[in-house]
Amino acid sequence: MQGIKSRLVKNYAMSDYQTVRGMRDFLPEEMEKRTYVISVVKTVFQKYGFREMGTPAVESMKLLSSKGGGGEEIKKEVYCFKDQGGRELGLRFDLTVPTARVVAGKPDLPKPFKRFMVGRVWRYDRPGAGRYREFWQADVDVFGSKSVLADAECVAVVCETLDALGFKDYKVFVNNRKLLEGLALSCGIKNEDVSSVFRSIDKMDKIGKEGIAEELESKGIYDKSAKTLLKLISEESLSKIESKVKDTGKEGVEEVKSFLEYMALLGFKDKVEFQASLARGLDYYTGNVFEIAVSGGKLSVSGGGRYDQLVKNYGGPALPAVGISIGIERIIQLMEEQNMFSKTCRGLIYVAPVNSDARSKALEIVQKLRADGLIVEIDLMDRKLGKQFAYADSVGASKVVVVGPKDLEKGEVTLRDMETGKEEQVKLEKLAKKLEVA
Amino acid sequence: MQGIKSRLVKNYAMSDYQTVRGMRDFLPEEMEKRTYVISVVKTVFQKYGFREMGTPAVESMKLLSSKGGGGEEIKKEVYCFKDQGGRELGLRFDLTVPTARVVAGKPDLPKPFKRFMVGRVWRYDRPGAGRYREFWQADVDVFGSKSVLADAECVAVVCETLDALGFKDYKVFVNNRKLLEGLALSCGIKNEDVSSVFRSIDKMDKIGKEGIAEELESKGIYDKSAKTLLKLISEESLSKIESKVKDTGKEGVEEVKSFLEYMALLGFKDKVEFQASLARGLDYYTGNVFEIAVSGGKLSVSGGGRYDQLVKNYGGPALPAVGISIGIERIIQLMEEQNMFSKTCRGLIYVAPVNSDARSKALEIVQKLRADGLIVEIDLMDRKLGKQFAYADSVGASKVVVVGPKDLEKGEVTLRDMETGKEEQVKLEKLAKKLEVA
Repeated sequence: MQGIKSRLVKNYAMSDYQTVRGMRDFLPEEMEKRTYVISVVKTVFQKYGFREMGTPAVESMKLLSSKGGGGEEIKKEVYCFKDQGGRELGLRFDLTVPTARVVAGKPDLPKPFKRFMVGRVWRYDRPGAGRYREFWQADVDVFGSKSVLADAECVAVVCETLDALGFKDYKVFVNNRKLLEGLALSCGIKNEDVSSVFRSIDKMDKIGKEGIAEELESKGIYDKSAKTLLKLISEESLSKIESKVKDTGKEGVEEVKSFLEYMALLGFKDKVEFQASLARGLDYYTGNVFEIAVSGGKLSVSGGGRYDQLVKNYGGPALPAVGISIGIERIIQLMEEQNMFSKTCRGLIYVAPVNSDARSKALEIVQKLRADGLIVEIDLMDRKLGKQFAYADSVGASKVVVVGPKDLEKGEVTLRDMETGKEEQVKLEKLAKKLEVA
Repeated sequence: MQGIKSRLVKNYAMSDYQTVRGMRDFLPEEMEKRTYVISVVKTVFQKYGFREMGTPAVESMKLLSSKGGGGEEIKKEVYCFKDQGGRELGLRFDLTVPTARVVAGKPDLPKPFKRFMVGRVWRYDRPGAGRYREFWQADVDVFGSKSVLADAECVAVVCETLDALGFKDYKVFVNNRKLLEGLALSCGIKNEDVSSVFRSIDKMDKIGKEGIAEELESKGIYDKSAKTLLKLISEESLSKIESKVKDTGKEGVEEVKSFLEYMALLGFKDKVEFQASLARGLDYYTGNVFEIAVSGGKLSVSGGGRYDQLVKNYGGPALPAVGISIGIERIIQLMEEQNMFSKTCRGLIYVAPVNSDARSKALEIVQKLRADGLIVEIDLMDRKLGKQFAYADSVGASKVVVVGPKDLEKGEVTLRDMETGKEEQVKLEKLAKKLEVA
């Protein structure tokens, strides 16, 4: 009885302090995968000339709920609070809005301003498979260039990141807001319904043509115009659409064509596809919009587009801008599912003194190896040799250096390969070299 | 008038969206310094066998204000809020409390559990020079080992980090809570006053002996015992103190001695000094405490100690633990002040097409160079050559590759060294090799 009771008490005590719902702890093994993905992302971003920038986790609610940002609706999704000074604050829900704030406030930044950010964002969303309340995003954006080459560079950098991570059959889908608007208007959709229609259209891959029809019906806007539009965007090619739009719609078509050409020049011709039903939910897009999906184009991992008005909305100059965001969580989840993380060896060397007399010499060896840049651990538990081997194995050591008085008399240590189990005597002065090569 | 008015309006609009008070944006140049410091820190931590772990920014207020953590008082300093589900939450104010929560909840982690964390923490503090409401900490901790070698390894890893960053004349100060308690009790300080006395003593380097005396006076505990203690800790050596304490006090002395020996074995003998007045404010320390200060020991950049009770406070097993924290902000600030950031070259290559006809070929060159791992940018503004050079200079390009039709006819490009201004013709097939070597 005593045992059960104390166990209950203990469990109760433990449950007092839990990870906040929808958020996660990362123990070293998971953390190291995450760090690996983020470091690949950053390296490729840098190769394309993007530079890292940072903003605080906390922003004013005024910014977060501004028209250009999340709007009033976002308040339901944002962690918001007042600080002790009465300021209304919230945790950032994306990396674009804070960046637009910074760029608006620094009109003198040299243009183009090519920046990237990788960091946490927070949303009070219903937690579920792959959906968290704290998650990581990685964004690249170009501010100050209206060239479609900037659009293509943003997408190409994501393609190269996916290549580097080992994704094979991803697809880039592109469409254009001007094209869509032109098409909608030429079909006879009313100006005030355009946004609402786009939001429904955007769900094509989730609910299909029939689902969209139903949704438009329920909104009371599934008339003849909507039917025509829906037919066009689900069936027609870029050239067919080109023949049906005019004015800004034509501009949109040109931008898509230019994007496809640049993507070909950048080496991603086979990856890109025009998709007339791609709308992207957010209101702030003004030109090309894109989505990148892996597994033959089925699972979206990245999306973005051109947003030439956003910086102006934050009081900055009228500044053309284009950007794209990668969902780090989705990437990690897919890589897990598809066994894409190779068992990377940490290269850990474990130094095992056979008894306390050997400890001083062992420490000297440890520091010499570390000075050579090796990753080295030593026993901190005064354990016997057998238990030291078990621990070394549990933390993934590739080699164990056994330090004992008898070997030391000959100026030697015993080196054990943890994979093969083979042991050999190594002269102290040759140890570092031997381990570096291995 | 028009001009002034619109400027006013614009400034007003800009001031609408400011960085939250006490928090900071990091433009690329600052961000890259920060990233450099953090990457050095992580590399050294890893060399000592510590592995990275992560926890959410958001924790329950129950945890943050728990006895083992910040206590009720901390509520004044924590950003706290309720989520839409009514949970009382707050932003983490350090990395130790969340880690203790994780370790308490995972009693099966192999021991010792050597983890590090580098991340943001938040405190609603009065902002000032070098004090921010969002700042970075880097922690290493060892859970499960009661060996003083674990204490020494935590301190040694910080010493080596400071070495790697280029700090020369830093000092490690060590003291011990048991020693201090033994000393206080043997001087006749009342049990219930010990904590309060320690908190005053800890301010020795800020307010001096006289300041401490005044503070103790105002607390009404500056009696004969306090005077004796104050004299002892400001004047006596470890061996003198050893002769004055008994029981747990003696244990404390032994732990300090053992720490000094291990630090010598780890190669940092000259850096370490016993300091009887070092107390460290936090209540949770139970053994050795340490502080590391640069500039001849005057500016503290790191501190920590042994805290064998903390994990148990969170419902975990009784687990010995020791850890140390580095203040990343202080480090960066001092490195700035002392010009310790070398002007690191990003290695940026800028590719400049002389006109739009050369753009396709230029893009092909860009992608080839990126495939070789180089950092490459291309004009996104349709600028003339002169303006492209000015931009390349502003973003720190080391080389510019000028791509023009005439050179291309000969299968060449013009390579300009941005530092010397020298130009040369380079065959296309030799370009990558030439740039890699440079």
